[in-house]
Amino acid sequence: MGPRSPLEFKMPNLSNRAVAMPSSPIRKLVEYAVAAESRGIQIHYLNIGQPDIHSPEAFWEAVNQSGIKTLEYSHSAGISPLRSAVALDYGEKDIPVQPSDVIVTNGGSEATLFAFLTLFDPGDEVVVVEPFYANYAGFAASAGIRLIPLTSRIEDDFTLPKTNDFAAVLTPRTRGILLCNPSNPTGTVYSADQLREIARLAKDRDLFLIVDEVYRDFYYGTEQLLSVLQIEGMEQNAVMIDSASKKFSVCGARVGFLVSKNPEIIEGALKFGQARLSAPTLDQMGVAACLMNTPESYFEAVREEYIGRRNLLVSLLSEIPGVVCPRIDGAFYAMVRLPVRDTDEFAKWLLTDFNDQGETVLLAPASGFYVTPGLGKDEVRIAYVLSQDKLRAAMRCLKRALEVYPGRLQPTAGATAL
Amino acid sequence: MGPRSPLEFKMPNLSNRAVAMPSSPIRKLVEYAVAAESRGIQIHYLNIGQPDIHSPEAFWEAVNQSGIKTLEYSHSAGISPLRSAVALDYGEKDIPVQPSDVIVTNGGSEATLFAFLTLFDPGDEVVVVEPFYANYAGFAASAGIRLIPLTSRIEDDFTLPKTNDFAAVLTPRTRGILLCNPSNPTGTVYSADQLREIARLAKDRDLFLIVDEVYRDFYYGTEQLLSVLQIEGMEQNAVMIDSASKKFSVCGARVGFLVSKNPEIIEGALKFGQARLSAPTLDQMGVAACLMNTPESYFEAVREEYIGRRNLLVSLLSEIPGVVCPRIDGAFYAMVRLPVRDTDEFAKWLLTDFNDQGETVLLAPASGFYVTPGLGKDEVRIAYVLSQDKLRAAMRCLKRALEVYPGRLQPTAGATAL
Repeated sequence: MGPRSPLEFKMPNLSNRAVAMPSSPIRKLVEYAVAAESRGIQIHYLNIGQPDIHSPEAFWEAVNQSGIKTLEYSHSAGISPLRSAVALDYGEKDIPVQPSDVIVTNGGSEATLFAFLTLFDPGDEVVVVEPFYANYAGFAASAGIRLIPLTSRIEDDFTLPKTNDFAAVLTPRTRGILLCNPSNPTGTVYSADQLREIARLAKDRDLFLIVDEVYRDFYYGTEQLLSVLQIEGMEQNAVMIDSASKKFSVCGARVGFLVSKNPEIIEGALKFGQARLSAPTLDQMGVAACLMNTPESYFEAVREEYIGRRNLLVSLLSEIPGVVCPRIDGAFYAMVRLPVRDTDEFAKWLLTDFNDQGETVLLAPASGFYVTPGLGKDEVRIAYVLSQDKLRAAMRCLKRALEVYPGRLQPTAGATAL
Repeated sequence: MGPRSPLEFKMPNLSNRAVAMPSSPIRKLVEYAVAAESRGIQIHYLNIGQPDIHSPEAFWEAVNQSGIKTLEYSHSAGISPLRSAVALDYGEKDIPVQPSDVIVTNGGSEATLFAFLTLFDPGDEVVVVEPFYANYAGFAASAGIRLIPLTSRIEDDFTLPKTNDFAAVLTPRTRGILLCNPSNPTGTVYSADQLREIARLAKDRDLFLIVDEVYRDFYYGTEQLLSVLQIEGMEQNAVMIDSASKKFSVCGARVGFLVSKNPEIIEGALKFGQARLSAPTLDQMGVAACLMNTPESYFEAVREEYIGRRNLLVSLLSEIPGVVCPRIDGAFYAMVRLPVRDTDEFAKWLLTDFNDQGETVLLAPASGFYVTPGLGKDEVRIAYVLSQDKLRAAMRCLKRALEVYPGRLQPTAGATAL
């Protein structure tokens, strides 16, 4: 190939938003992982919330026995049995929801995007607690809205900032508050009292309150896990994001939910839903079957499994010098401080320059979960979605890596001095 | 229920874009259809491009024999076998595409949205030929871009406006041209020569050229159907939208494609793809199997079926006084003029006040396919996706309805005087 002429290179520019759009911090290391695997290295994937739990048999039965000949569009709001099953399921958890309060979306991802498009205009501000699920930034860029971060800190176990701190960042352009509870990426579960305080603030200041409750079923505490839809007086302001992905370990089904008691919100979101026609039909049938046929014992077993994994992870991390792991009450993530200066470099090094007995780990560097520049540089998100045996091997790799990593901070640097 | 207190009604306003977002013209009559069906009326659905053709056996086999235990996310750009199968399929049609030129999306819908988000910023202008696929307006509203309509006319069989007409509407804010070929909603197929002219204009003026080629396999002519990816020198500017929905009659699979030879466009679009994680995994496997295992004879049979339907439709419409049906060379739609003043009212009346032998038809009023106010008020889009027997019954209903409709125009009103 010779040099190309200038004319060949001539092209219009991409949009500013495409240029500004963040690459996924979770997925950007994948190319290095592929290269490592091609060198025969075994990788323990701790970077993405892809559970290894089997999808329920009910899902496969519904899909395989659908009896469908022509795979048609479904209703833009979702198939009726699924909307009903969702409402029934919430009802059993004392969350009052009608089928008409539910729009079925292409995963929780699309539910979040629809909420942004329906509630906020370009330039509007939405307060969000950082570190937050990195893809919120992508949906915000798509929708042209500004995420205003309030920082939660590992020193405080990533608990919610105080209500006064929320009040302090509100401006005339603020239109909403976005929370994730239980939190991805920190595993924190917010207290019912504080959620009610935030809700009161939202109500008083005429703001929407969106709560991503995708990890509701991964809660390991004993106190009540309060849904935003259970807070009285918030019917007009509250939107709940949910998903089948984690609940039933069917991430690839792309079935999520936008739920609100405010019919105007549902009607507005449905217009965006109509434009994209529908969520996948067969997968919706599978998820409806899961909701109707999965006994509570399934969730109990899953929770027990994750509690075991969490306990193991916390215990193994505590044995690695300089590592800080906060309290984790839900989801299947830990936001962990490592004794390194830059976890982006460290995570890459793990794939390009390291292995222990032919194995290494893929971590999600935390900087992509923060918007405030400089924060999270010494943190990583660990998704403990692997079996205990694999978690043990992964932590062995991490411990060894931190012993030999050229960029490691010395213990005296104070990284452990919390 | 007593009157609600003012406080109960207090809520923040939805976004301006949600308010401005058009309701689907195709789906907004559905509630009247549901009511009619509950009165025992049989409805012939001519309003939506939902083919009745069976999905290929290869799809069901791939889905039922996936052997998957845990339904995981797929790669954000799509599963590798599907991207390869798509490239191979284009190759067989002399459209030069590599797997890396393809991003798998949640239907052609998401491919269109990703193209808008990747190429255009809020306020940018994109020239589009009206009448156009109504949901383009929804994606434009989501992305904040302005669609600038160039009108094609039933009197000209909805052929493309002249290249000079395109040039005349370009402004410094114009960033792209969007075409659909074969056209939904008109069934028009654009000539290769004119497409090349438009491409040259786009290239000269540094514009992106997006062509929605979702109906490529539904082409009933004998001349070459030119893909935008076959136009030399357009590698940097061209984006093709495609979908499995119509091709394999798997609308409910939600599997579409954004295709471009420009790696920057693919890289930019992939960032939006990463934010939403992936398209549905199982459905992608089904579509990959369709692409690899469907013989050309399947498409020949489908085309033959649609040619028969088109011929029947055109013939039956020609027997209804005052109805104008233009030439149709592709897709499975006809944009038809009716001897009524307002097809929105007529389409509703068909559901609320009319039946012939207990049957009626659901039509898509054409006004929603235009952005220029007042255009299309006497047109409807007919999707001929029903068997010939059902089409006969539907046209019998339409003919009878136009005889008894109180708002019908008299033949002397000139509706037929083309």
